[in-house]
Amino acid sequence: MPTPAYDETNIFAKILRGEVPCLKVYEDDVALAFMDIMPQADGHVLVLPKSPARNILDADPQMLGQLIARVQNIARAVKEALAADGITILQYNEPAGGQTVFHLHFHIVPRWTGVVLRPHTGAAERPEVLEAFRRKIVAALKPL
Amino acid sequence: MPTPAYDETNIFAKILRGEVPCLKVYEDDVALAFMDIMPQADGHVLVLPKSPARNILDADPQMLGQLIARVQNIARAVKEALAADGITILQYNEPAGGQTVFHLHFHIVPRWTGVVLRPHTGAAERPEVLEAFRRKIVAALKPL
Repeated sequence: MPTPAYDETNIFAKILRGEVPCLKVYEDDVALAFMDIMPQADGHVLVLPKSPARNILDADPQMLGQLIARVQNIARAVKEALAADGITILQYNEPAGGQTVFHLHFHIVPRWTGVVLRPHTGAAERPEVLEAFRRKIVAALKPL
Repeated sequence: MPTPAYDETNIFAKILRGEVPCLKVYEDDVALAFMDIMPQADGHVLVLPKSPARNILDADPQMLGQLIARVQNIARAVKEALAADGITILQYNEPAGGQTVFHLHFHIVPRWTGVVLRPHTGAAERPEVLEAFRRKIVAALKPL
């Protein structure tokens, strides 16, 4: 089955259009990154392209190459800022693949030895907690 | 903590050097892809760069851009070949991040509605089963 068409009403499209706020970690011409408000771990960040793509299946390969460089750079900052022992990168495609918002995105999830991931329960973290992690990550970001 | 140095004795380095066999799905100058012998789902494929990188944290960004285009292309073929409803892409960095082999790799895991991922138990799939999936995926691969 072909990948369904991009739906402009998804929540990340609204964030990209400035219609919905986010706790921004990084932005340039290619990508926007912000704190996941339902984090699976402290410092969980989402990275998405500015151009419309439903997921990795319909993404422009050249854009994807630029995007992954942002993912890498932000993952390094997240690891440093949170003093994480490791990073798990998750990228979900279509509902069966775990995708719930239909704009391509990579999850950057910091990990610590012995700490299991929180389930994606839908429970939102307090804004002041997310903001404290956001500041640390932004401070650790190096130029691309 | 900086990313530890690349260790040439890891099993994927041995596969890349031809010292250990694999069920090859794709190969070019940039990447090698083969069937995961302990699949979390039918048709589970691993994609790795030919150049040495421990994980995404120490990878060359330009190589990474080329690699993700291969991941995308193979993910499309896996989805088609296995008639999957979705694709989950997993990329683990450092032991706390879920990494067990210390050569950068992306997991391409086909998903079907209502089918949960098998745990990474260490149980190997039968070679003839893996080979049947491999053939289907290779047949579905389109030129990059």
